[in-house]
Amino acid sequence: MSGGLSILVIDDNKIRASIIEQGLHDAGHDRVILVHQMEGLVRQIADINPDVIVIDLENPNRDQLEHMFQVSRAVRRPIAMFVDKSDSHSIEAAVDAGVSAYIVDGLKRERVKSILDMAISRFRAFSRLTEELEEVRSELADRKTIDRAKGILMKSKGLSEQEAYDLLRRTAMNQSRKIIDVAQSLVIASGLLGD
Amino acid sequence: MSGGLSILVIDDNKIRASIIEQGLHDAGHDRVILVHQMEGLVRQIADINPDVIVIDLENPNRDQLEHMFQVSRAVRRPIAMFVDKSDSHSIEAAVDAGVSAYIVDGLKRERVKSILDMAISRFRAFSRLTEELEEVRSELADRKTIDRAKGILMKSKGLSEQEAYDLLRRTAMNQSRKIIDVAQSLVIASGLLGD
Repeated sequence: MSGGLSILVIDDNKIRASIIEQGLHDAGHDRVILVHQMEGLVRQIADINPDVIVIDLENPNRDQLEHMFQVSRAVRRPIAMFVDKSDSHSIEAAVDAGVSAYIVDGLKRERVKSILDMAISRFRAFSRLTEELEEVRSELADRKTIDRAKGILMKSKGLSEQEAYDLLRRTAMNQSRKIIDVAQSLVIASGLLGD
Repeated sequence: MSGGLSILVIDDNKIRASIIEQGLHDAGHDRVILVHQMEGLVRQIADINPDVIVIDLENPNRDQLEHMFQVSRAVRRPIAMFVDKSDSHSIEAAVDAGVSAYIVDGLKRERVKSILDMAISRFRAFSRLTEELEEVRSELADRKTIDRAKGILMKSKGLSEQEAYDLLRRTAMNQSRKIIDVAQSLVIASGLLGD
């Protein structure tokens, strides 16, 4: 779970940053990059391309917090975020922004390892679930598109459902494309041609 | 987010239980039930029917931990769990078991409120995602069943796809049932009858 991960620590407070660094060092992490500059974070993260991100905000105002939530939404990586205080609203917003571990008043060198592990585990569990949702959604959408394409062929060429499907499949094979792509083209073309 | 929630606290250590109770009291929660008996927990939870569960395990062995993860899987409620130490494996197992907040070495009266809020927020976010997955999966399964039923009717009665669908819909209306139920019956019966 840990080992050779590259970890980006974002912190503008050097004392707190060193607590996090020590905790990471205790846990055997030596690929740690520190960033103190809060401007252009998404770009910096893309350049550094870390496996995990740790953000320490001490006592952020609403704008700073919202900025970090935007970063969280943009980067799609495990993020552990430390703040010294928070309200229910910000906790909910952190969860919604995909912050994998949002730690209120809990920064302590000994806890850094387990919080990092937790962030990674939550991120993976969440990713698995969203990928599964994406797959099922896409399968359903494909099925609807193929059904529409079959319907168009059945109506316009007087085919049975099986014949329509066979025609889609044959066309896909002949053109080295997928059935769903052929079906999609047919649905779009049929819309254009006013069918 | 908080207010009138009923909260079940499971703890066999009275000092630690009272830290949690005080933290809940500070946060304005007065519907708190304490349980010290670890036997038959799922039954106890079903009887008490709390909105949120807080479990404190201090220093659990693997069996105790696994027992609590089974409880977590069974009860489908926001769960915050406190342990004094943990390894990566147990952290991952906690996430997989649906523990909404798994706090390692972080029990402190002042933190109880934010950890409770976090558990509730994570539980809701997770529930929304799993419900959405369930809905899309069920829509896809229904579509497949209706397609199979249409296919059976088209073949056995020589109908077009549209006629087969109309027949399913008419039958459903006449019997005050849903199309998917009629389709399901047809698919099952067709299997029985060896079609």
